[in-house]
Amino acid sequence: MSQLASPTASRVAVIGASGYGGLQTLRLLLDHPVLSATFLGGERSAGQRWSSICPFLPLPDDPLVQSADPDRIADAADFAILSLPNGVAARLATQLIERGVRVVDLSADFRYRSLDQWSKVYAQEAQTLNRSDAELCQNAVYGLPEWQGPAIAEASLVAAPGCFPTASLLPLLPFLKQGLIEIDGIIIDAKTGTSGGGRVPKEAMLLAEASESIAPYGVVGHRHTSEIEQMATEVAGQPVQLQFTPHLVPMVRGLLSTVYARLRDPGLTADDCTTVLNAVYRHHPCVSVLPVGTYPATKWARHTNKAQLSVQVDKRTGQLVLMSAIDNLIKGQAGQGVQCLNLMAGLKPETGLPLQSYYP
Amino acid sequence: MSQLASPTASRVAVIGASGYGGLQTLRLLLDHPVLSATFLGGERSAGQRWSSICPFLPLPDDPLVQSADPDRIADAADFAILSLPNGVAARLATQLIERGVRVVDLSADFRYRSLDQWSKVYAQEAQTLNRSDAELCQNAVYGLPEWQGPAIAEASLVAAPGCFPTASLLPLLPFLKQGLIEIDGIIIDAKTGTSGGGRVPKEAMLLAEASESIAPYGVVGHRHTSEIEQMATEVAGQPVQLQFTPHLVPMVRGLLSTVYARLRDPGLTADDCTTVLNAVYRHHPCVSVLPVGTYPATKWARHTNKAQLSVQVDKRTGQLVLMSAIDNLIKGQAGQGVQCLNLMAGLKPETGLPLQSYYP
Amino acid sequence: MSQLASPTASRVAVIGASGYGGLQTLRLLLDHPVLSATFLGGERSAGQRWSSICPFLPLPDDPLVQSADPDRIADAADFAILSLPNGVAARLATQLIERGVRVVDLSADFRYRSLDQWSKVYAQEAQTLNRSDAELCQNAVYGLPEWQGPAIAEASLVAAPGCFPTASLLPLLPFLKQGLIEIDGIIIDAKTGTSGGGRVPKEAMLLAEASESIAPYGVVGHRHTSEIEQMATEVAGQPVQLQFTPHLVPMVRGLLSTVYARLRDPGLTADDCTTVLNAVYRHHPCVSVLPVGTYPATKWARHTNKAQLSVQVDKRTGQLVLMSAIDNLIKGQAGQGVQCLNLMAGLKPETGLPLQSYYP
Amino acid sequence: MSQLASPTASRVAVIGASGYGGLQTLRLLLDHPVLSATFLGGERSAGQRWSSICPFLPLPDDPLVQSADPDRIADAADFAILSLPNGVAARLATQLIERGVRVVDLSADFRYRSLDQWSKVYAQEAQTLNRSDAELCQNAVYGLPEWQGPAIAEASLVAAPGCFPTASLLPLLPFLKQGLIEIDGIIIDAKTGTSGGGRVPKEAMLLAEASESIAPYGVVGHRHTSEIEQMATEVAGQPVQLQFTPHLVPMVRGLLSTVYARLRDPGLTADDCTTVLNAVYRHHPCVSVLPVGTYPATKWARHTNKAQLSVQVDKRTGQLVLMSAIDNLIKGQAGQGVQCLNLMAGLKPETGLPLQSYYP
Repeated sequence: MSQLASPTASRVAVIGASGYGGLQTLRLLLDHPVLSATFLGGERSAGQRWSSICPFLPLPDDPLVQSADPDRIADAADFAILSLPNGVAARLATQLIERGVRVVDLSADFRYRSLDQWSKVYAQEAQTLNRSDAELCQNAVYGLPEWQGPAIAEASLVAAPGCFPTASLLPLLPFLKQGLIEIDGIIIDAKTGTSGGGRVPKEAMLLAEASESIAPYGVVGHRHTSEIEQMATEVAGQPVQLQFTPHLVPMVRGLLSTVYARLRDPGLTADDCTTVLNAVYRHHPCVSVLPVGTYPATKWARHTNKAQLSVQVDKRTGQLVLMSAIDNLIKGQAGQGVQCLNLMAGLKPETGLPLQSYYP
Repeated sequence: MSQLASPTASRVAVIGASGYGGLQTLRLLLDHPVLSATFLGGERSAGQRWSSICPFLPLPDDPLVQSADPDRIADAADFAILSLPNGVAARLATQLIERGVRVVDLSADFRYRSLDQWSKVYAQEAQTLNRSDAELCQNAVYGLPEWQGPAIAEASLVAAPGCFPTASLLPLLPFLKQGLIEIDGIIIDAKTGTSGGGRVPKEAMLLAEASESIAPYGVVGHRHTSEIEQMATEVAGQPVQLQFTPHLVPMVRGLLSTVYARLRDPGLTADDCTTVLNAVYRHHPCVSVLPVGTYPATKWARHTNKAQLSVQVDKRTGQLVLMSAIDNLIKGQAGQGVQCLNLMAGLKPETGLPLQSYYP
Repeated sequence: MSQLASPTASRVAVIGASGYGGLQTLRLLLDHPVLSATFLGGERSAGQRWSSICPFLPLPDDPLVQSADPDRIADAADFAILSLPNGVAARLATQLIERGVRVVDLSADFRYRSLDQWSKVYAQEAQTLNRSDAELCQNAVYGLPEWQGPAIAEASLVAAPGCFPTASLLPLLPFLKQGLIEIDGIIIDAKTGTSGGGRVPKEAMLLAEASESIAPYGVVGHRHTSEIEQMATEVAGQPVQLQFTPHLVPMVRGLLSTVYARLRDPGLTADDCTTVLNAVYRHHPCVSVLPVGTYPATKWARHTNKAQLSVQVDKRTGQLVLMSAIDNLIKGQAGQGVQCLNLMAGLKPETGLPLQSYYP
Repeated sequence: MSQLASPTASRVAVIGASGYGGLQTLRLLLDHPVLSATFLGGERSAGQRWSSICPFLPLPDDPLVQSADPDRIADAADFAILSLPNGVAARLATQLIERGVRVVDLSADFRYRSLDQWSKVYAQEAQTLNRSDAELCQNAVYGLPEWQGPAIAEASLVAAPGCFPTASLLPLLPFLKQGLIEIDGIIIDAKTGTSGGGRVPKEAMLLAEASESIAPYGVVGHRHTSEIEQMATEVAGQPVQLQFTPHLVPMVRGLLSTVYARLRDPGLTADDCTTVLNAVYRHHPCVSVLPVGTYPATKWARHTNKAQLSVQVDKRTGQLVLMSAIDNLIKGQAGQGVQCLNLMAGLKPETGLPLQSYYP
C-alpha cells in the first residue's frame, strides 16, 4: 500500500479487514482520492497475504494482514476504522486514542453516552469485558454525519451508528425536532438483508435457511431500540419510547425502515412533510428525498452511501408513514464510517463515496 | 380427468387454470381424496392440451383446456373455483349460480357486502364492468373458514379473501372481538413474495427487478385495506380504520403480516395473548399458534394451508405485536378456496390440504 | 411417535435427525402410509424435545431426540436411515446390522465396493476412522432403485447414492449399457443448490456469499467423480473415465446435470434417444422422460422424488446432450433413501413419496 | 446534460435508454472522466423527463428522452451507443454513420461479417427487416477489445459481442490461436443471470418463475453458437464447430462460462495453461487471470467490466477446463460498449470503467 506523499493526515488503518465491515471499508478506500488504507489488521488472518484471503479484491502491493498492535498502527496510520465484534473494539480504541490515532468504531461499544446504559443493553459483552472507560464513552461522538457533522469533524473517537438506527433516524429526526408528531406510539418496522449478520457462519444466515423466507427476529427489546431512542430523545428534547421490529429478508444487502407516527396537526399533507425533509437534507448529498408517491426500493440504494427517503400521509388515520432505504453495509456501516473519516480529515462528507447504484 | 362414481357432489371446475391460482388449485386437487377437477377453463389457452401449457404438472388423461362456457361447466361440475382477474369473475359467477353450480371466487368481486363499496374500491374495474348484481354481493359469504365456517358450508357463492386480509385478520380478529385492543392506531406492516402479483408478466415482478430488493408499494389506500377493515369492523362491532402497508419481498411465495395494536389492559402478557389465540384456534387445524418467543418464518408455512401465528407484548410501550405467516398462494388463495370447497361439500375443512412444509 | 400395530416391519429409526437429510426423511415419513419414524437419533440434540429443535415440523407426541445407541435403536426400529457425516456412519451401520436392523446409509461410507477405493477418495476421513469393514463394503448395495431394485429389496445395507451421481447416472446409464456413446470424452457439468452443503454453517454457504453468484468448485477430482465412474464402468462393462464439474447455484434446492457424450451412430436423433430413455424408465414412476424440445427446470422436480430427464442431439457435432433435474434433498438424498426402504419393506418404490411439485 | 467544453469528440448518444443496456451505459458514463451522454433516445419513453422513467438514477439536468431522429442525434453527439432489439438497430446505424456519427451497436445486427449468415441465424428478424447493407456488415468491427483493439480504434461501426461469446471467447481464443487444443469436441456450458433476458416483461423471467430453479434453454442451435464459432474459426485459422448450452440461473446479473476442450499435448499442466492466458492478457486491465486452484464466482465480477478467468487440467482425461466469469450487463454488454468507445475516442480501454466489485 503506497503511502501518500501528502502532508495532510490521510493514512487509514482498517482493523478487522476480512469481515464485511472491513472489506467494504477497503473497497471504498480504493476509490478514495485522498484517504488510503495503510494498515490491515486482523486476528485470524494475521500473517497472511491479503490476496490469499480475498482473491476477489486485489489491493495494491498485496499487503500482509497484521495483528492489531496499537504501536504499529499508530506508526502506520492517522486514522483507524475498527470493524470488530461488540465488546472487543473498546480496548483497542482506547489504546489508539492514547497514541494519537483518531478512531471510527463500527461496533456498538461507544454508541451510548453512558457506559452504564451500554452495560445494560450489551449485558453479555459487558460481563466478559469489564470496561472502565465511562469518560471515553461520554466524549465519543455518535457518527450520524447529517446531524452531528461539526462534532464529528473535531472528534477523536466516533461511534458509527448501527444500520437500523441510521435508516430509521434519518427520516424520523426532522419530525421529532420540529414537534410535528406525537412522541408516543412510534412504530419502526424494519427489514434487512442477511449480510447484516456478518461473515461469521451462522445457521440462520445460510442461504438454504434464509432464502425464500421472511421472518421477524428480536421482537421487543432488540438492542438497536435503545440506540434509536437515545438519539430520538436528544433531538426531541423529551423521552421517546418506541416499537422497533427487525425482519430478515432474503437478500444480500439493503435495509428498509418503514416508520409510523401520528401527526400532531392532521392537516399536514405528504407534500408538506416532504418539504420538511427537503429543508433538512437539501444540502446533504448522502440523503435523497423522493417525490411524493415514489417509494424507495433498497435496490436503488445498493452499493451507495445514500439514504433514499419518502413520505406518505394517511388523512383518514392521521398517520405519517416514513420510508427509508439504505445499503446496510455502506450508509449503514462502512460508508458512513468513511463519511465520518472525511469530516475528520477536513474533506467534504461524500468525498470518494459512491452515490449512484448500478441498476438492476 | 376421470369423473368419480361417487354420487355426492365432488366434481370441480377450475376456471383460469394456467394462472397461479388455477395451477395451485389443480395441484391441490390432485392429492384430494374426494374432490377432483373435471373441467379446466381458460381463455388464452382454450383448445390446448394441458401438457402443452404446463409440462411440469401432468394431469390424468391430459385434458383439454376449454373456454369457460357456463352450460358446459354446469354439465361437468358441481363446484367451480374461479381464478380470474378482478371484474371478470362476476359475470361468470352469476351464470354458474343460475345453473346450480356452487362457486368459490378467488377474485375480489364478491368480497364486499355492498356493491357500491366494491365500485368505489375497484373503481377502474367498475367502470368497464358496469355490474348490477348488488343482491348477489350481499349474499356472498366471505370465505375465511375459521370465522365463517357454517355460512360457507351453506353458501352458493363464496368470496375467498385476499392474501393480505387472510394473514392479517387471523391474528387480529380474536383481539378485536374480545375488545382487548384499542380500535384506532392499528398498523399492519405486510410483506409478500412476488407470486402474489400473478403470472402475467409485469416489469416490477421480473427477477432482475425484484430480486435483491425490498420495497413498499400501495402505501396508504391499498385496496386490501378496505377489505381488512370491513371484516374487522364486523367482528369488533364498531368501525375500524387502520394503516396497511404492503411490501414486495424477493421470494417466490410466502406472506408475513406484522400487526401492531395497543393493549387496553397494559397488564396483559405475551402468555395471556397467546392463550387468547389458542382458545380461538385450538380446533382449527389450518392455524397454528407458536409458543411465546418463537416467531414464524414464511418458510415454515410454505406449500401448506396453515397460518403460523405468534404474539409478543412490549410492556414498556403497551404494544401488542402480532405475527402471521402464510403461503400466499395456498392459505392466501387456492388452498383457502379448497378449504371453502371442503366445507361446502360437507367435508372437514383441511381435507386433502398440505399442513406440513418441506424444510428448508 | 405411535408405533404401528402392523406386524410387518415398518418402524424406522432416523439418525442425524436435525440435519437436512434427517429432516427430509422425517417429513417424508409423516406422509407415508406404512413406514413411520419410531426413533430419533442425534448427537448435539440428544435429550431435547423435537419441538424445541424444529418448531416448524411438529411430530406426533413430540418425541425426544436420543443418542444413537445401537441397542436402543434395535429395540425401537426395523430399519435405520443414517444421515451422518462421511466416516461417522460406518461404525454405527456395522453395529446396527449385527443387531438385525436393516440400514440405509445416506453418507458415502458404503458407496464403494472396495474399502481401498473409499480410503483413497475419502482419504481424510479414512485417516481418522481406520476402518476394517471391507467385507461389509463389498456386500453393501448401491441404492439407485431404478438400476438395483432387486438387490436393494434383499439388502441389509444400502448405500444411497450421492446427489450428483443420482442425477448424472439416470440419463447416462441407458446409453452406456447399450453402447450408444463413446466411453471417453463424457462431460458432466452439474449445478446444485446450496442445501447440498448441509446445515452446518459454512462461510461459502451464507446467503450473503452464495446469493447473486454462480461458481464452480471441486474442479477436477471432486469425490463424486469416482462414484459416478464406478457405476458407469459396471454398466458399460469397461472402464469409464469422465469429466465432472459441480457448480454452486444461488437457490436452496435443486440439482441439474447437463451431460455431454459423443454418439457412436451419428444418425441417431433426439427422438431415437428419447425412446431409449423411455424404454428403460417407462415403468419407473420416479423418473419422467420429457418430450423432445422440453428441457427440465429444477423447479419442476422440487419437493418431489422424481428425476426429470430430457435429451437433445446436435447433428452438426454428433453430441448427445442429456439433461437431468432432481431435488437434491429428495431424489438426491432422503427421498431416494425412503425409496430404498420401500423396496426393502416389500412396498412399491414410490410408496408415500411426493411425485408432483408445487409450482411456482 | 452539460456538453463538455473539450474540443475532442466526447459526446455520446444513448439510444434505447431505459432498457438494461441503455441504463448501464448511462450509469457508466456518469463516472466517466471524458465521455458524457448528450442525447437520450427511446421510443416508448420519448417526450418524458428521465426522472419520471428512472427515479433511481438521477441524471444532471434531468434530460428529456427524445425519439431517435438521426439528424438530431448527429447534431448532439459524436458517438452513439445503440441498445435496441435485434433487427431494429441496423437501419438507425446506417443513418448515423452517413451523418458522421460513429456507432457502437449492442445488438446482434452487425456481429456477422456476412449478411447472409446473419439472415440465416436471425431468420425471423431478417424477414421483417429486409436488409441490404451487406457491405456495412463486412466493414463492421467485432468489438472484443482484447482481440480487436486497433480495428476498433479506427472503426465507424463496432458490433459489441454477445454476453456468452464474450465470456467464452476470452479464455478459449488463446488456446485456439496457439493450436494447443483439439478443435473438435469443444463444449461450452454457460450460465447466466436473468437480466440477460432484458427489461421487457416475459413470463420466464418473472421472479416467481425463475427463482429457486436452474434450467437449460436454447439447447443445440442457440444463436450465440454461430457468433462464437465465427470468431473461434478466424483465430484458429480453420473451421471450428462446438457445443454451446446456456442455462438460466436465479440471479440478477453474472455469467459464467465453463469451457471444456481436449489438450493436444497431454503433458501440459494447469500452470502451463495459466501462463498461456497470462501471456495474452497481462496488459489488458479488463481481464484478470486467477491463480491455479482459485475458481471465479460471478459475484467477483459483478458491477465490473472485468472478466475473471481460471484454468484447470485433468491429467487423467486430458481435458482442459476453462472458467470465465463476467457481469453480463457490463463486460457482457454496456461496459464492453464503453470500452470500445474509449478506444474509438483515443482513450485507454478501461477509462472510467469499474474494475473492482463490491463484495458481497
